[in-house]
Amino acid sequence: MKIAVLGGDGFCGWPTSLHLSDQGHEVHIIDNLSRRWIDTELGVQSLTPMDSIQERCRIWKEISGESIRFHLLDLAKDYDRLRHWLAECRPDAIIHFAEQRAAPYSMKSDHHKVYTVNNNVSATHNLLTALVETGIDAHLVHLGTMGVYGYSSVGAAIPEGYLDVEIENLQGEKKGMEILYPTRPGSVYHMTKSLDQILFQFYAQNDGLRITDLHQGIVWGTHTEQTRRHEQLINRFDYDGDYGTVLNRFLIQAAINYPLTVHGTGGQTRAFIHLQDTVRCIELALSDAPKAGERVKIFNQMTETHRVRDLANMIADLTGAEIANLPNPRKEAAENDLIVKNDHFLDLGLNPTTLADGLMSEVVEVARKYAHRIDRSRVPAVSAWTKDIATRVNHDPEGRQLRSVS
Amino acid sequence: MKIAVLGGDGFCGWPTSLHLSDQGHEVHIIDNLSRRWIDTELGVQSLTPMDSIQERCRIWKEISGESIRFHLLDLAKDYDRLRHWLAECRPDAIIHFAEQRAAPYSMKSDHHKVYTVNNNVSATHNLLTALVETGIDAHLVHLGTMGVYGYSSVGAAIPEGYLDVEIENLQGEKKGMEILYPTRPGSVYHMTKSLDQILFQFYAQNDGLRITDLHQGIVWGTHTEQTRRHEQLINRFDYDGDYGTVLNRFLIQAAINYPLTVHGTGGQTRAFIHLQDTVRCIELALSDAPKAGERVKIFNQMTETHRVRDLANMIADLTGAEIANLPNPRKEAAENDLIVKNDHFLDLGLNPTTLADGLMSEVVEVARKYAHRIDRSRVPAVSAWTKDIATRVNHDPEGRQLRSVS
Repeated sequence: MKIAVLGGDGFCGWPTSLHLSDQGHEVHIIDNLSRRWIDTELGVQSLTPMDSIQERCRIWKEISGESIRFHLLDLAKDYDRLRHWLAECRPDAIIHFAEQRAAPYSMKSDHHKVYTVNNNVSATHNLLTALVETGIDAHLVHLGTMGVYGYSSVGAAIPEGYLDVEIENLQGEKKGMEILYPTRPGSVYHMTKSLDQILFQFYAQNDGLRITDLHQGIVWGTHTEQTRRHEQLINRFDYDGDYGTVLNRFLIQAAINYPLTVHGTGGQTRAFIHLQDTVRCIELALSDAPKAGERVKIFNQMTETHRVRDLANMIADLTGAEIANLPNPRKEAAENDLIVKNDHFLDLGLNPTTLADGLMSEVVEVARKYAHRIDRSRVPAVSAWTKDIATRVNHDPEGRQLRSVS
Repeated sequence: MKIAVLGGDGFCGWPTSLHLSDQGHEVHIIDNLSRRWIDTELGVQSLTPMDSIQERCRIWKEISGESIRFHLLDLAKDYDRLRHWLAECRPDAIIHFAEQRAAPYSMKSDHHKVYTVNNNVSATHNLLTALVETGIDAHLVHLGTMGVYGYSSVGAAIPEGYLDVEIENLQGEKKGMEILYPTRPGSVYHMTKSLDQILFQFYAQNDGLRITDLHQGIVWGTHTEQTRRHEQLINRFDYDGDYGTVLNRFLIQAAINYPLTVHGTGGQTRAFIHLQDTVRCIELALSDAPKAGERVKIFNQMTETHRVRDLANMIADLTGAEIANLPNPRKEAAENDLIVKNDHFLDLGLNPTTLADGLMSEVVEVARKYAHRIDRSRVPAVSAWTKDIATRVNHDPEGRQLRSVS
């Protein structure tokens, strides 16, 4: 297939591009390189030394013989260029990663909130409109988030996108309905994925676009089969307080003898998936496209759930790291359960990489190997969800300000 | 109170500004005058001769002694100016009408879709972010639409925003939940109001903003008590195929012996409200603000439901007009029921103006009086919901192309 990977320079986009190219697909990366600009803005860099996208594509051609073409294009701002590019390229499938994806970054200031909403909504909507306008019947696979669900208050499992409910009609009879799961996002970033769902619902219904939305958990790991093949193909690895995901952050904290920063009691249960499984899920989703006129297909792209404190304990046991309980910069319940269905991907043949299998190799191959590149001052998570919470955030878990709340 | 009316130059915004000023509130209109630009773009004009906003405010001052201040500001594009203005003005309440509000215009082309989404989402989100950033605890009253509900398929009445459902938990027990009504908007315009709902839910929950969302039906009528006081205070009246609402269009069609254009069978049931009741509802909503931390209050702002063909017949009986059944440019069910609850406003004291009371005065005072200003070529509704439907739209209900589908 001819596949466009939007946001193909990013943490999930790059390994997905390699994976699909390795399977013989013609891959086109569209990216505005915004993630690299944000590194510059924040004064942080990937733990792993990362080459330019052009250089990465050149190395991949040398190693594999396959071409990945890179196109510099801002989906959110350049609607007309996007439409022209689509009309010319006519992809069979489009993988859409091209959104600002860090919840803490989205809560950093008013300008970061405005940027995240404008960028993410415009990128997704421009894409949908351009598909309708060009009449291209590509299968659109979008990376959503588990965060659209929020946390159930009635002890029910989180289904894959649609919830069975009963409502009472005018005659007083109970009638069954299947509805889009009532969304309750917990950050401006997560909210943009809730908005995307409404856009998808409309364009699938009005224009027959074929869309799959993948509600992904927190990704951990760095390598996939392809990124291992050459040191210049390595994926980015974020450890800073805005872009680093919790498990990856614990790993590098352990590697540099920094306390594992657990926010609040660590009773938040989160869903996880290894990066290798992410790229495999994209492949599986591509193999199972909805038909025109069908509703949006929604899969939960996660393989395990854990409480944050259990993860911290697991890594502390493995590495001898200390744990620091810090005030939580997020506005959320201190403790929650999370039971998630992921039958669709298991049925399609996903064979998950478990934490138990993969954790130690991450510690050795990535965290310890590149530990000398870490700027310790960038490790704390300081973007607070409200002004009130901002006054309680701990900026220095190593210093005298350390206030344990456990 | 000090009240900011965003979009105060528009069809609902102007009479609302006059109504609130007349009650002694200090009214500030914020508007980017986009509606006047769209008139220019489409080559149409209000049936009623409409002065500049500055001139209207001058006349109001002469007539009433009250000042209405006008501020030219684009909410969607000028975030920083909006924030500074709010910090300086510190309104007690904000009425938010400042969105592109025509479904046909939103479906006109890819560029109109992109404009509507970017403009409406950015305007609403910039406002919410600026309220959080400035710490202003103003009550935000937003004009939503009945169109966020779509049409129920199980014969249940449409509640005011929140739906009682039962779901099954892990123990197999049925548990009651009240959820935001599952949205199913029917156009890009209506979709933006569905997106607004998610924005409101988040900011009410995360930041304690106090928000009321009014899901309004189709507005008919032109005059309010204040707009009658001077001919230069008259409200705009749109009759064109994009901005004219169905009942107002029937009235002017009748006035100029143009066939009443019923799309499809006219079996679509819609909700209606008179403009005088709109401004009264805004007043009532202001008197009943939610507290910080409360969920968004949602009221259905409508007073009657009718099938489109019944309205056409009513006006044909009143005026002797012909009816033409044309292909429907919208993608929607040909026939639907609509049962809507509006208890909140009735409980707060709304005393509706009925069609039976007000229809004849509209025909005489507005439609016939200004009939000489009508451009007949602008009457057909030609913005189609899909490319396929576009091939069937009837551009000339008066000419040889007339194809009745009834």
